[in-house]
Amino acid sequence: MMRKFAGLRLLACTALAAAYGAALPDDSALAPLQVPAKNLPVPADVSPELQRIIAAPRNPAWNVLWKTGEEWRTAANARAAKTIQTLPAMRRRLHVTVQPGTMDGVRIYVVTPDVIPPEHRDKLLIHVHGGCYVLFPGESGTSEAIMMAGFGHFKVISIDYRMPPEGYFPAALDDAMTVYKAALKTTDPKNMAVFGTSAGGALVLEMMLRAKREGLRLPGAIAPGTPMSDVTKSGDSFYTNEMVDNVLVSRNGFCDAGTVVYARGHDLKDPLLSPVYGDMRGFPPAILTTGTRDLLLSNTVRVHRKLREAGVDAQLEVYEGQSHAQYAFDDRVSETKEAFGEITGFFDRHLGH
Amino acid sequence: MMRKFAGLRLLACTALAAAYGAALPDDSALAPLQVPAKNLPVPADVSPELQRIIAAPRNPAWNVLWKTGEEWRTAANARAAKTIQTLPAMRRRLHVTVQPGTMDGVRIYVVTPDVIPPEHRDKLLIHVHGGCYVLFPGESGTSEAIMMAGFGHFKVISIDYRMPPEGYFPAALDDAMTVYKAALKTTDPKNMAVFGTSAGGALVLEMMLRAKREGLRLPGAIAPGTPMSDVTKSGDSFYTNEMVDNVLVSRNGFCDAGTVVYARGHDLKDPLLSPVYGDMRGFPPAILTTGTRDLLLSNTVRVHRKLREAGVDAQLEVYEGQSHAQYAFDDRVSETKEAFGEITGFFDRHLGH
Repeated sequence: MMRKFAGLRLLACTALAAAYGAALPDDSALAPLQVPAKNLPVPADVSPELQRIIAAPRNPAWNVLWKTGEEWRTAANARAAKTIQTLPAMRRRLHVTVQPGTMDGVRIYVVTPDVIPPEHRDKLLIHVHGGCYVLFPGESGTSEAIMMAGFGHFKVISIDYRMPPEGYFPAALDDAMTVYKAALKTTDPKNMAVFGTSAGGALVLEMMLRAKREGLRLPGAIAPGTPMSDVTKSGDSFYTNEMVDNVLVSRNGFCDAGTVVYARGHDLKDPLLSPVYGDMRGFPPAILTTGTRDLLLSNTVRVHRKLREAGVDAQLEVYEGQSHAQYAFDDRVSETKEAFGEITGFFDRHLGH
Repeated sequence: MMRKFAGLRLLACTALAAAYGAALPDDSALAPLQVPAKNLPVPADVSPELQRIIAAPRNPAWNVLWKTGEEWRTAANARAAKTIQTLPAMRRRLHVTVQPGTMDGVRIYVVTPDVIPPEHRDKLLIHVHGGCYVLFPGESGTSEAIMMAGFGHFKVISIDYRMPPEGYFPAALDDAMTVYKAALKTTDPKNMAVFGTSAGGALVLEMMLRAKREGLRLPGAIAPGTPMSDVTKSGDSFYTNEMVDNVLVSRNGFCDAGTVVYARGHDLKDPLLSPVYGDMRGFPPAILTTGTRDLLLSNTVRVHRKLREAGVDAQLEVYEGQSHAQYAFDDRVSETKEAFGEITGFFDRHLGH
């Protein structure tokens, strides 16, 4: 028994090489860890509404891998029609109005809450929607902007950037930059924040890299939510949370396929597609949001660490039991209010100075 | 194909009940999620030294479940003898000296770095070691204190609290409170921080709950690392990271067994054993540390959320690919320096005012 107990050396918080001895593999033998099948109960310590979202079956279309921009757009339009039907009720619940428009030729939606407190009247948020660079065209991309406007009481401009087949890399980023530059003409960047989730979170980071390169002033804060920061399939949670995340499900699923179509042969490790590889020095204060079951948990925490290493004031929020982007699924879930409350508080602390 | 594609509704960031329709289970059908067996490669985006720690085989003693305090102490002493052999070299590397002593009858070690910068000379850190309330007796409990003193250039008092069979719940907490109160006689609490990992992280939180109850002034900051904040086996990562974490391995492993021996029949849901259930209002600023493979990832992020809900300034750090407490395994690993650097920076921002 005492020999067996020596395995507790793994807990010894010190002098590892000496303590572990032969238990540590050499560099040539970094073998994968075999994990047996398991059953995951629905977590107890979340709201009943969130429990139902966590208990939903895996996205049945997780492995639908369209190969062309045209196929993606057909599918995205069908999906968008259904999403759009749900938006009027949410806008009413959150007391928000939405107006389509353009800024320097790029399609946008102006999302305005009924009540804007005095301290928010000089503030402007820019929203970049998610959807693997291929989903949520038009009004269907505004849901997160509606939540941010409604919960945060900010005016939001949501960018309806070009997606395949209308545009390929870097069309989405180009459109986002056009809107950002247009906004700079009327708003002090210290009063602006940029936010988005998933591909939108990646676009937020890509915008900062591009703005640095172009010598633009950066916004006062950013909120990249569970950013698709590495589309090269590198990241521990692509494996640990495979088949655990009920939204994205797998690194070899629809979201990867959509991004490959958007990239159209461009190097996926380019920081303008995988911003975790970019130079984040000088980035504005950032709040990042993810969940313990998120396939992009590692994509998120790796960006957080890179930001911290670059000396950026970066705050990480990880929600119990949530898969990819579930903090923004339903405005009626208490954890959704909590997540947007955190982002609002972060913007309030960092904007305007 | 279009019907299959409807599964992408899971990405629709809006109006869930309407969008999901029948896909959402009702409250009576929160079925567990079945996850198939898988292989986890060693993550690419960590240091080579950390890769070797991540690639180490599962702790072979993870399911050694001693039933008495005497058995635990025999095993802990054997382990401690090996750990202690590694400490002189680490103290030399980090330029730290360690002196045993007592404070109001409680055994301590005073851990002093060779160089203390002027701004740290009025500061004092209190360290509560980990080990499931049964491991790391005596000097073997000082390794994390040596790292904190060495990397942070703070004077540290490490508490050698009573463990089974010498003492059972709440002996460890009683000893920690005795030292804290003794320190209050000479040091302004705004110049003090309390830190620890695993059971030590839980003890940090338990100390704050007890200090509030006793009307004591609280320290200027705390650093509960991957705290054993819930010993009732509730928490999503007890399942998602089962057999993934190569240190603790399972919620039904040695650490749980040790805690049950320490609790000796006391209600495991008492906030003084499972502090996630405590009232955290008024807690000092807190920095929490964990990893994506940590069995206590949920124990950590749930505390982070409870702190934030209680209005506490709380910062979360999650390291790529790390299992339980691996940020404190080896002072020569770059991620270890990074983790203690974050904690040092946090203390520097919050102590003294």
